[in-house]
Amino acid sequence: MTFNIVVLPGDGIGPEVTDEAVRVLEWFAQHRAIPLHLERRLFGSAAWTAEGSTMPDATWEAILAADALLFGATGSLDQTHIPPEERRKGSLLRIRKGLDVFANLRPVKAQPALAEASPFKARTVAGADLIFVRELTAGVYFGTPRGVETQADGTRRGVNTHSYTEAEIARAARFAFELARTRRGHVTSVDKANVMEAGRLWRDVVSEVHAAGYTDVTLEHMLADNCALQLGRAPTRFDVIVTDNLFGDLLSDCAGAINGSLGMLPSAALSAPDADGRRRALYEPVHGSAPDIAGKGIANPLGAILSAAMLLRWTAKAPAEADRLEKAVEAALASGARTADIAMPGEAVLSTRAMADAVISALEAN
Amino acid sequence: MTFNIVVLPGDGIGPEVTDEAVRVLEWFAQHRAIPLHLERRLFGSAAWTAEGSTMPDATWEAILAADALLFGATGSLDQTHIPPEERRKGSLLRIRKGLDVFANLRPVKAQPALAEASPFKARTVAGADLIFVRELTAGVYFGTPRGVETQADGTRRGVNTHSYTEAEIARAARFAFELARTRRGHVTSVDKANVMEAGRLWRDVVSEVHAAGYTDVTLEHMLADNCALQLGRAPTRFDVIVTDNLFGDLLSDCAGAINGSLGMLPSAALSAPDADGRRRALYEPVHGSAPDIAGKGIANPLGAILSAAMLLRWTAKAPAEADRLEKAVEAALASGARTADIAMPGEAVLSTRAMADAVISALEAN
Ligand SMILES: CC(C)[C@H](C(=O)O)[C@@H](O)C(=O)O
Ligand SMILES: CC(C)[C@H](C(=O)O)[C@@H](O)C(=O)O
Repeated sequence: MTFNIVVLPGDGIGPEVTDEAVRVLEWFAQHRAIPLHLERRLFGSAAWTAEGSTMPDATWEAILAADALLFGATGSLDQTHIPPEERRKGSLLRIRKGLDVFANLRPVKAQPALAEASPFKARTVAGADLIFVRELTAGVYFGTPRGVETQADGTRRGVNTHSYTEAEIARAARFAFELARTRRGHVTSVDKANVMEAGRLWRDVVSEVHAAGYTDVTLEHMLADNCALQLGRAPTRFDVIVTDNLFGDLLSDCAGAINGSLGMLPSAALSAPDADGRRRALYEPVHGSAPDIAGKGIANPLGAILSAAMLLRWTAKAPAEADRLEKAVEAALASGARTADIAMPGEAVLSTRAMADAVISALEAN
Repeated sequence: MTFNIVVLPGDGIGPEVTDEAVRVLEWFAQHRAIPLHLERRLFGSAAWTAEGSTMPDATWEAILAADALLFGATGSLDQTHIPPEERRKGSLLRIRKGLDVFANLRPVKAQPALAEASPFKARTVAGADLIFVRELTAGVYFGTPRGVETQADGTRRGVNTHSYTEAEIARAARFAFELARTRRGHVTSVDKANVMEAGRLWRDVVSEVHAAGYTDVTLEHMLADNCALQLGRAPTRFDVIVTDNLFGDLLSDCAGAINGSLGMLPSAALSAPDADGRRRALYEPVHGSAPDIAGKGIANPLGAILSAAMLLRWTAKAPAEADRLEKAVEAALASGARTADIAMPGEAVLSTRAMADAVISALEAN
């Protein structure tokens, strides 16, 4: 049996960082006998330029057939040269929805080697180790009605709809409770129940799922604004944070400041398991396409490489190899390897490629 | 001429901190001849208990007739003993909407005296001095349809509507540009234009308002998730941040971590000026009702006191007195005055009352 991985480098720094994650996965295929088959596919801006379609049929078919996707980055705002219909067709949101990868895992772990580079005091972040379960296929990202209309007086009005069904909330909650059981047993559920009826429903359903089967896990509810504050004041108080699509987007970036750079952060988006227990999966660094530094070979590949570690854990079911890769990243950082985004003034700065080399050396040293 | 201020202490720690803000304002009335008339009114939980109504008619009439409101805190989630209809009637959201105070100013300034207490490194926050213009009377807080419905299969679905008209966006943008002219001349407008059509409209209208009359101010657009990150990485890069109701709620709490405690942060909510140039105004500390510490006399009154300074500036049109009060707060902090929320281990902790005494002493020493 082979895991069939479709690689979608995307735009901006996507191709550069994805190349390094692919190199690392190929190392595991060769040296650790992880049965991975990797194939690159054109998508987004790159596919538009090459083939006149942001989502060539062959790419979409490969996406639907894959065991997992390894995704680079997409710059939806830089695509104004592409017609709106084509932009939607080749969008990350369409892939997330099409694969029904509702559970977006975003781990944030303070890296001791980056204590100096962090904007926070060491006492604030030391030991921080939290993970978001961000609901990824509903909420204001997908709700209808949506759009801009012209009102009777000729002026415009913009509308988006925040919508959650009980089933959408319940499956995210269950995922969070199951995950907490493998960690420190604590879930923080985040909403704006004091203002939004849909937030009140979120809170009620999470409590119901908890009461029905997860009372061994502790559950607290927190308002989203307070969570934004607490992520800055006391990030070590969190274990698993479950929240909706939009709050998850903002709050995971709040937490991203912990290591000083989004460049460090990986993510996985997972579907419900099929009859054979297999989940569809989309792995991508949390950072975006960063057009300002694209093509320079200076982007931090660690977010992409740590996303590859999540692939080893969740798709290849090789948790020991995932640990090995995460430890190699820590070792590379501990040995002083730094890309520009995480370097202190005066520290030597590595290229994207050289940072990945440092990780691979650390793998080989083990 | 006298400024008629209606004081609404509210719930939880609201009464304690409001008492101190009132004492400070009375000091300005007595010693600096600021013509303030302050009257307390029952509202919310307290009014429900005393009079069986969360918004007695006399309170609502006083609110509508006032030159400004000085508000303490409200704990909407702790009011489950009050019928929903009554909770809405006496809600902060009803007051905001009723007074049409669309421009919510939330300044965040790094306090040098609190550098040790801040969760951030001094190099991150030193010199940070930013202000949010949060749109306060539209967006998902007020959009319809909203509520929880039972679907055909018997399960629930929660819906809220994010809605912005061109006029609602334009007046917030104009306020932000005018304010930037009195500061460092830079506006950051924050949205999720890459995902929400209403965010795309937000971005377009802000750009149009800018082009039509404010090209002396620099404007940048930023995605809300990136703003959450940048507030942690580099808060000094911001001057004026204009954003919608919900993003403003979360992002101002992100920034609230800068001084280590929300207890430090004031706010003002202002309407459009009437024919005589007067704006309706609601002043309140950013923190909530904090039921866990209510009644203990340990809450930080500085958020309320700095809100009183904003009242001196915006309602009493006494900017020099507002500066005097802000400097007195800085002096009190510099002399070592600390409430529990901003004290370092081992530092002496003042009560709510004693902290206000320290501010009044600093006023008198000048
Ligand atoms: C690129 C954008 C559509 C996306 C989102 O908003 O979900 C990104 O910010 C993320 O967090 O993955
Ligand atoms: C109390 C609550 C309704 C309010 C809000 O969400 O606006 C508060 O968080 C605030 O920021 O003033």
